[in-house]
Amino acid sequence: MGVKGQLLVISGPSGAGKGTVCKALLEKNDIWISVSATTRSPRAGEVDGINYFFTPREDFLKKIENDDFLEYAEVYGNFYGTPKSKVFEMLENGRDVILEIDIQGALKIKSAYPDGVFVFILPPSMEELESRITNRGSETPESLKTRLNAAYDEISFASKYDYAVVNDRVEDAVKKIESIIMAEKCRVYKIKDEILGRF
Amino acid sequence: MGVKGQLLVISGPSGAGKGTVCKALLEKNDIWISVSATTRSPRAGEVDGINYFFTPREDFLKKIENDDFLEYAEVYGNFYGTPKSKVFEMLENGRDVILEIDIQGALKIKSAYPDGVFVFILPPSMEELESRITNRGSETPESLKTRLNAAYDEISFASKYDYAVVNDRVEDAVKKIESIIMAEKCRVYKIKDEILGRF
Repeated sequence: MGVKGQLLVISGPSGAGKGTVCKALLEKNDIWISVSATTRSPRAGEVDGINYFFTPREDFLKKIENDDFLEYAEVYGNFYGTPKSKVFEMLENGRDVILEIDIQGALKIKSAYPDGVFVFILPPSMEELESRITNRGSETPESLKTRLNAAYDEISFASKYDYAVVNDRVEDAVKKIESIIMAEKCRVYKIKDEILGRF
Repeated sequence: MGVKGQLLVISGPSGAGKGTVCKALLEKNDIWISVSATTRSPRAGEVDGINYFFTPREDFLKKIENDDFLEYAEVYGNFYGTPKSKVFEMLENGRDVILEIDIQGALKIKSAYPDGVFVFILPPSMEELESRITNRGSETPESLKTRLNAAYDEISFASKYDYAVVNDRVEDAVKKIESIIMAEKCRVYKIKDEILGRF
């Protein structure tokens, strides 16, 4: 076709259900999801190459120097980054690619790769978000409050994204993201040369 | 919901299959299609209010004066126009609206109503377009040539539209347009206030 794959950057506050939505999306579609690199140690059950590429700090710093990351950040003393080469290889091969990354990372990619499609996943309401986080059972009242405040701050960044998808029901959210991918492949500014070249 | 309906403006060269695609789209979706007004006389089989609102010239001119049209044009001495009030009424009620109109009309609406979504339907190739027009059997070699040249000129206007949909198979074209409608309803710049107002 000559049309490259679509880069889809997905963010959203903790509790919006990004992970669940991405998982359901990948089950139904031929999309490749990028795995981040990190210098932090694996937690119990985490697998190298699946959850993260666990990368020694020295190697990570060398990769930064070589411009090997689409974006990277240091959080609480650990580095996290999105390896560049594999993402571009997949896109060139016409494969759609998902990056499920935080807002700061997404905004960095937006300025570096404006052809990406930036999707913000939202919970249906703050009440629903609170109930989802509470039901995980891992929060103290204090940490719940911190998380909710962080989520509230993050939601204001939705306006920097191209699309906002309210995750009310996972299957509806997935359908919307599938539609966004299909619609973006019909956008004239992206396919003009390929299409008009036929005539 | 507070979210208004989506205005979808569909154009494309003769032979692209706009009519077939719109018909299939309307069968499957709750979309309202606008009926144009014209001063020309009904042809055999044409029904007032279905194919066109057949409107006396004097009335049409009065409507122009009253700014009752989204766009209008005079073609070979007959006026054609898109009545405004019904379109806006439907959109305000949250109903999606299709206008299947020519390129000149579409471009006029684009400047007056930029929130509209402009979709250009293309034939898969000039060869396929030629075969479709030929198979109608109503063309002389001369008029076929004129039609093909006109189509070729029209296709260059695709670049003024938001989306281009190649009508290879009708069901695929319909699926793409359905995706475009769904994706446009997730566009942050359109739903920001409604969505952020929830938090």
